[in-house]
Amino acid sequence: MQIGMIGLGKMGLNLALNLKEHGHTVIGYDSQKVRGANGFEQELSVAELVEKLEMPRIVWLMVPAGNVTESVIEGLVPILNEGDFIIDGGNSNYKDSKRRGQALKEKGLYFFDCGTSGGTEGARNGISAMIGGDAQKFTEIEPLFRDISVENGYLYAGESGSGHFLKMIHNGIEYGMMQSIAEGFEILHKSDFDFDYEKVAGVWNNGSIIRSYLMALTQNAFSKDKKLEGIRGIMNSSGEGKWTIETALDLNVPAPVITLSLMMRYRSLEDETFTGKVVAALRNEFGGHAVEKKNH
Amino acid sequence: MQIGMIGLGKMGLNLALNLKEHGHTVIGYDSQKVRGANGFEQELSVAELVEKLEMPRIVWLMVPAGNVTESVIEGLVPILNEGDFIIDGGNSNYKDSKRRGQALKEKGLYFFDCGTSGGTEGARNGISAMIGGDAQKFTEIEPLFRDISVENGYLYAGESGSGHFLKMIHNGIEYGMMQSIAEGFEILHKSDFDFDYEKVAGVWNNGSIIRSYLMALTQNAFSKDKKLEGIRGIMNSSGEGKWTIETALDLNVPAPVITLSLMMRYRSLEDETFTGKVVAALRNEFGGHAVEKKNH
Repeated sequence: MQIGMIGLGKMGLNLALNLKEHGHTVIGYDSQKVRGANGFEQELSVAELVEKLEMPRIVWLMVPAGNVTESVIEGLVPILNEGDFIIDGGNSNYKDSKRRGQALKEKGLYFFDCGTSGGTEGARNGISAMIGGDAQKFTEIEPLFRDISVENGYLYAGESGSGHFLKMIHNGIEYGMMQSIAEGFEILHKSDFDFDYEKVAGVWNNGSIIRSYLMALTQNAFSKDKKLEGIRGIMNSSGEGKWTIETALDLNVPAPVITLSLMMRYRSLEDETFTGKVVAALRNEFGGHAVEKKNH
Repeated sequence: MQIGMIGLGKMGLNLALNLKEHGHTVIGYDSQKVRGANGFEQELSVAELVEKLEMPRIVWLMVPAGNVTESVIEGLVPILNEGDFIIDGGNSNYKDSKRRGQALKEKGLYFFDCGTSGGTEGARNGISAMIGGDAQKFTEIEPLFRDISVENGYLYAGESGSGHFLKMIHNGIEYGMMQSIAEGFEILHKSDFDFDYEKVAGVWNNGSIIRSYLMALTQNAFSKDKKLEGIRGIMNSSGEGKWTIETALDLNVPAPVITLSLMMRYRSLEDETFTGKVVAALRNEFGGHAVEKKNH
């Protein structure tokens, strides 16, 4: 099939190469213009890309969620024709995808929200994909997902928004799993035993109940830096964890572990906390416990 | 080699069969006497088992942690000879294993604490093992662990206690990972989308970042009962999670996610909570919010 790929960053470029390897024709576009010889045709504007594609067109977005996705879709609508497809493979909020699915349907366009997991390595060699949108029309683009996913690695999840909903929850679970693994290693690190963390992650990843891709990545990380002395423990986040918790709140679901995983990420961004100051001040007020004064 | 296996429950029996399949001679004992034809010699007492073994003897314990393990070891000490080996493959507290390693060394016995992971399927076909004890003497029993573990699935972890310490932390991580997965599915379950949980677990286990043995087990569970309508959400625990948190407290390690995973298990054991009553009463006191009265 022929696909127009908008956004040739780490994920988009690897997905494009993955599609190409499976015999599909990729025409690319990226706002950063030419990213060197990527082995497929690259256009200088979205309009040129759309012009090159045969109808019904399949335009695949791999661009940042939020404003960028919104404006790319807004730019596409007037230059696409009825019956064309838009696939959003980014990490959009499922509420946006629900809305877009509805709005684009009214214009005769088929919108699919595709949660994409597996990282850059997966994008190149086989992703895990969760797709929401029109069930009937999905069958027309299904071969694409079969080709670029690992075996049993794609799921038609239901109506618009369901793909990004699953990806959001996937990321929430990921936050909790990562924090669990990390807490375990911190206890090892503060214990009196002298463990080789790379070997520990190795044995935990072979035959144990907690064997997992994340444990394999943990082993990888320790193989490069035995005690992670070269990096700081600053844990950024990119939105899906927050949305998972907002959704839990909307649905009255107690999700303490996913929630605290995100809170611990926020905590890691601060060297000093106002919480700490307030508690230290209160302990001083009621019990005369010493407070540490700031140096000037 | 020749091994005396004490405790032929789900784990011990499968380990014995695993050892036998790798060419080792197993002599078994279980307090429940004969468990049918297990394909290896079974004695009617620990004393008879010890008598049958060639020196230096290797006695492998797969019995419940705590009092049972303690009394089996106490029973063994007077009938073993200097240079014999005791392997504790159960889930003993690492502090007990540290103490036992020291005490048995003074009697000329070699004690190894072996954290065993992989469940009954692993015990039969390949475990993950973390072993603590004398480094020199470990080399003599290492072939056993090489044979019964999956590839790269055993680790000599260090001095006595280190094997069970690693197993304890492994289980703590397991609690957190399980709670993370469970919270994710609860949000799916309360959402407006109509997901097929077995398929969701399937796609998450193929190519995604959260692919893991636990996700495979999740898929298994949903394949048997689509919405788990046949079981109750009562989450028991067996000690290692609690020890992980006690250890975190002793070492001043913030481990909120592992801790809350255990707290949520405790919560699941109660239909009604006193916490709930106190908060309901207080909301009524300060704001006149209605409380639900008990029916008599």
